[in-house]
Amino acid sequence: MPKLADRSARMPSSPIRRLVDFAVAAEKTGVKVHYLNIGQPDVHSPDAFWEAVAHPGVKTLEYSHSAGTAGLRQAIAAHYVSRGLEVTPSQVIITNGGSEACLLAFLTCLNPGDECLVVEPFYANYAGFAVAAGVELRAITSHIEDDFALPSAEEIERQITPRTRAILLCNPSNPTGTVYPRATLEAIAEIVKARDLFLLSDEVYRDFYYGQDELVSVLQLPGLDNHAVMLDSASKKFSLCGARVGFFVARNPDVISATLKFCQARLSAPTLDMFGVEASLRNTDDSYFAAVRNEYKARRDIVVAALRAMPGVVVPNIEGAFYAVVKLPIDDSDRFCQWMVEEFRLDGETVLMAPATGFYITPGLGKNEVRIAYVLDQQRLSRAMECLAAGLQAYPGRA
Amino acid sequence: MPKLADRSARMPSSPIRRLVDFAVAAEKTGVKVHYLNIGQPDVHSPDAFWEAVAHPGVKTLEYSHSAGTAGLRQAIAAHYVSRGLEVTPSQVIITNGGSEACLLAFLTCLNPGDECLVVEPFYANYAGFAVAAGVELRAITSHIEDDFALPSAEEIERQITPRTRAILLCNPSNPTGTVYPRATLEAIAEIVKARDLFLLSDEVYRDFYYGQDELVSVLQLPGLDNHAVMLDSASKKFSLCGARVGFFVARNPDVISATLKFCQARLSAPTLDMFGVEASLRNTDDSYFAAVRNEYKARRDIVVAALRAMPGVVVPNIEGAFYAVVKLPIDDSDRFCQWMVEEFRLDGETVLMAPATGFYITPGLGKNEVRIAYVLDQQRLSRAMECLAAGLQAYPGRA
Repeated sequence: MPKLADRSARMPSSPIRRLVDFAVAAEKTGVKVHYLNIGQPDVHSPDAFWEAVAHPGVKTLEYSHSAGTAGLRQAIAAHYVSRGLEVTPSQVIITNGGSEACLLAFLTCLNPGDECLVVEPFYANYAGFAVAAGVELRAITSHIEDDFALPSAEEIERQITPRTRAILLCNPSNPTGTVYPRATLEAIAEIVKARDLFLLSDEVYRDFYYGQDELVSVLQLPGLDNHAVMLDSASKKFSLCGARVGFFVARNPDVISATLKFCQARLSAPTLDMFGVEASLRNTDDSYFAAVRNEYKARRDIVVAALRAMPGVVVPNIEGAFYAVVKLPIDDSDRFCQWMVEEFRLDGETVLMAPATGFYITPGLGKNEVRIAYVLDQQRLSRAMECLAAGLQAYPGRA
Repeated sequence: MPKLADRSARMPSSPIRRLVDFAVAAEKTGVKVHYLNIGQPDVHSPDAFWEAVAHPGVKTLEYSHSAGTAGLRQAIAAHYVSRGLEVTPSQVIITNGGSEACLLAFLTCLNPGDECLVVEPFYANYAGFAVAAGVELRAITSHIEDDFALPSAEEIERQITPRTRAILLCNPSNPTGTVYPRATLEAIAEIVKARDLFLLSDEVYRDFYYGQDELVSVLQLPGLDNHAVMLDSASKKFSLCGARVGFFVARNPDVISATLKFCQARLSAPTLDMFGVEASLRNTDDSYFAAVRNEYKARRDIVVAALRAMPGVVVPNIEGAFYAVVKLPIDDSDRFCQWMVEEFRLDGETVLMAPATGFYITPGLGKNEVRIAYVLDQQRLSRAMECLAAGLQAYPGRA
C-alpha cells in the first residue's frame, strides 16, 4: 500500500468541527444543541444576491477571468474606496473564499521552510494552509489578561529569525474579537519595513467593528504598498459563507502578477457566486451594514454581560468580529466542551463550543479557554448562556 | 522591497491564455476571432442546474460539509454506479473544480521533492499544481506518430527513480484526445502495484468518448483500491466550467481522510453550485449525454477531415475529449499562433490556437504542434478550419 505524504499526517484536524459528531449524536436523542462553535452567521444573504443568481443572463456557466469578473473587481474596489481604502480593480484578485486568499498569500510570498509570525491565539485554519504551502508558523503570544493586545515590538522582534518572511495578523481578530488600534499597526509597520517582510492582514471581519474610533486597515498605513496584502471575503460581509468568494488585495504589482499565475492554474473562482456578490455590493447601502453590525453588537453585549455574571469567568474587551475567547474555571477545555455536548443538559438543551487549545500552537495554552461564536439570534444566545452558566456549576472538573 | 517566493518565479504562465491579449487587440480592430485555444464548451448548461440555483430553498447561503453536500455525494456516486464504476458517497470528496482535485491529490499523496510521472504532452496546469505542492513532474513522452499512445512499460520503468511516488494520466487525454485501451491501463496498473505507487487518473473528459469499445476507468482495474485516485469534474460533463465543482474519488480510506483534512482548512466547495450539479445529475438521463457526445463527435469529424485535407498536416487518431494536437508544416508554433492572431486575416477572420510547446516539459518538443479545442458550433468550426488552411498557405515561416 503506497505511503501518504508526510504533510498529510502533519495536517491538523479542525478544532472547530472536531466535537460536531458528539453534538449530532446528542440531537439524535432529542437534545437541543446551541451551536456556538462555528462562525456560520444566521443573517439572511442579501436579496440582491438571490436575484442575480436566479437571473444570470447567460445559458452556459463559463469560466471567468482567473482574477475574477471585471464587474466584481470594480465593485469591490469601489466598496473599499467608499471605506477610505484606495484600491483599484487591478489590485484585487477574486479567490475561492478568504481561505484561498490566505493560501495564495503563503504560496506567493513565502518559500517552503520560511517562517511566518502569527499572533496566537489565531484562526486555526492558518495552520492548515501553512502545512499545504510548507510554511512554518511561529507564534507571537497574546494574553487574555491584556485583552489579547498585540505584544510589544521588542517581543515581536525577538521572534524574528533569518527565515522570517512575513507577519500574519487578523484584524478584527478571529478568534478573540480584538481590534488593533492605529498605533499598534504602525509599530508593526515599522518592523515590517525595517526587516523587509510581508504584512498579511486578514480583515474578513472588517464590517463587524463595534468601537468608536476608526477601524484601520493595513492598506491605510503609509509606506507599506510593497509589503501589505489584505485578505477579505464575502462570507461574513454578506452572510454568504457558501458562496466561496474572497478578495486578495495588494498594491505591489509583482505580488498580484505572481498570485495571478497560481490562479490561472485553477482557472476561475465560481462565476455565478461572483455575479451574486457583485449585485450584493452594488445594491446594498450603508444601512445594510449598519443593521447587521447593530445586530451583532447587541449579541456581543448579551454574551459579554452573561459571561461577566458567571463566577470565575474572565472576559476580555471585545470590539469586533463575532467571537470571544474567554477563560473558564475548568480543568481542561477539550474535556469540558465534550462533556457539555455529551453529558450536560439543561431542560434538554446544551451548548457546543470550540476548545481554545486548537487556536494556539504553543503546547499547553488555551487549556482553560473556549471560543464562543455569537451567531445565533438574541433569544437563543441568552438561552445558550444560561446553559453554559448551569454547565459550569455542574461540571465535575471545575477548578 | 520584500522578495517573493522562488516558486512564484517558477510558476508557469498559462500557454492557453498567453495569446489572448493579441486576440482581444485584433477584435478591437474589427477582426472576428475563432477561439480554439481554450476548452470552454458552448453547449448550454442543463435547465435543471438553472432551476435549482434559482430556487435553492434557503435564505442564507451557508458553508457546506467540507467533503461536499450529502446530496451531491450520493448523486455522483449513483452516476458512477450507473456507468459501471463501484463508488460509494463516502469515497467522493467534492472539490473546487477538477483543478483543486488535482492539487489535493498532489498534497495528499506526494511529499515536496517527490516525483510524479506524467504522460507528455499533458494538461499544462498540472505543472502549476506541481509547483504549488512542491512536486517534481517527470515526463513520459508520447509521440504524434504513435497516435500519442502510452510508451511501453519498459520506457515507463526507465523513468522511475527512488523519489517516484505517483503516475498521473489523463484519460481521455487533454490535450491529445487519446483514449487508453484496457490493456494499456492494465500494464500501468502492474507497474503501480509492483512499485507501490499512486495512480492519479484525470477523467474529466470521460463523458466525451467517441470510440466503439468500452471506456475503462482507473476505478475498474482490479487490485488498485489502495492506489487509484480518480479526478473528475462537472465542468465539461454539464458545460458548467464556471460552477467549480469537481470530484475527488478514492477507495483508499486513508487517502480520503487525509484529503478531507486539507478540505476542512478551506471549509467548503461552493454550496449553490453543488445544489445545481446535484439537480443536473438527478434530472438528466443518458439522452443528454448522448446528444452532447454526438455533437462533439460531429465536430471532431469536421476538424479531422479538414485538417487531413491540409498539405503537410499530421493528424493522429482522436477518440475522446474535445482537443487535438496536430503537427503543422511550420517553423515554430508560438510564432505561428501569434502571427495568425496578429497578422493573418481571411476576409476579416482569424483563429486563436494554443502552441503545443506549453504542453511539454521536455525542451524543444511541440515546436511544430498546436492544440485545437473544437468547442465551437459546426459552422464556425468549418470556417475556422478554412482560416487555418489559408493561414498555413500564407505563413512566411512555412517549413
